[in-house]
Amino acid sequence: MNRILTIGREFGSGGRTIAHLCSEELGIPVYDNELLVKIADESGLATAYIAEKGENTSLSGLIARGLSRQGAYSQPTAEDHLWAMQRKVILDLAEKQPCILVGRCADYILRGKADCLRAFIYADMAWRAKRIVEVYGESAEAPEKRLRDKDKRRAAFYACHTDMVWGAPHNYHLCLDSGALGLEQCRDILCGCYRHNG
Amino acid sequence: MNRILTIGREFGSGGRTIAHLCSEELGIPVYDNELLVKIADESGLATAYIAEKGENTSLSGLIARGLSRQGAYSQPTAEDHLWAMQRKVILDLAEKQPCILVGRCADYILRGKADCLRAFIYADMAWRAKRIVEVYGESAEAPEKRLRDKDKRRAAFYACHTDMVWGAPHNYHLCLDSGALGLEQCRDILCGCYRHNG
Repeated sequence: MNRILTIGREFGSGGRTIAHLCSEELGIPVYDNELLVKIADESGLATAYIAEKGENTSLSGLIARGLSRQGAYSQPTAEDHLWAMQRKVILDLAEKQPCILVGRCADYILRGKADCLRAFIYADMAWRAKRIVEVYGESAEAPEKRLRDKDKRRAAFYACHTDMVWGAPHNYHLCLDSGALGLEQCRDILCGCYRHNG
Repeated sequence: MNRILTIGREFGSGGRTIAHLCSEELGIPVYDNELLVKIADESGLATAYIAEKGENTSLSGLIARGLSRQGAYSQPTAEDHLWAMQRKVILDLAEKQPCILVGRCADYILRGKADCLRAFIYADMAWRAKRIVEVYGESAEAPEKRLRDKDKRRAAFYACHTDMVWGAPHNYHLCLDSGALGLEQCRDILCGCYRHNG
């Protein structure tokens, strides 16, 4: 039996919805927006800042971090501070109780734990574009561009903090195409694996 | 309900064994070595040649193909001939009856079919190294090198014929870590999806 389920996901893939479906089915809490609040409490940073910077990075962020690693700047950046807080909150939560963690490199942070099932949810561009317009109410103009930007920034954040490739199968125990399989089937597979393994 | 299940797999991941477990469970044939015999019948090529060249490519093969595409050589290579035969046999089989196809870019060849479930099986290096020594009787000396070589050649073959990245989640409906999940659980997930979708 696993204790923790981490769900990485492409923007618009429904990974967050699947996490909530699993939470209902397994009777354990899911930390997604709730995670923001906890990180805000720990760090004193604003939730809007955490939402934006806690799993997305920009080109300027990447460059600043690259320079910082080479010792060009000796001070840790605000993003380094956020990362440290986020890591602490995730480790504490995983220690305290069985739960589901969405995004924020939780898979990487908890990679050494034997009782943690790590999943990644993705779907093709057309399916996700339709979904972000219909479900999230995003602008119907160029949703593909929005998806590409968002994926790119999540991938850059992941690469920056983990030195691994976001969405590469070897980082996860299973990767599911939510567009092809459907959200409910993804829930059933994840809950089956969560209960089976460990 | 799907009709076809394609299983791409890393060397030593147990993808072939999972295919046979699914075949028993679903009561449909699996084409793996049997595919070699059919391709040999169609092409007049030796099965040993097909086994080696039908999903692996070498650096020289890649260069020859690159040059051929640029028109430096006008004649199709022996590998082009094999690819055409292999493609035909896979399309014919998929047309004729529900079945399971292992490797050989079947996922790519059948990507337009709505009733085809496409899976990829992988596992970490240490698990696969142990398995190829214990199950395949491979030499216990440097099995990791053998795995890397074999993966690299399958990836090159896939890239060469499909212009896509072997093992990248978006090419498949689901990707499963057989080392973490176990072969039987992979079978159960695949059979569940095969019966559910379509």
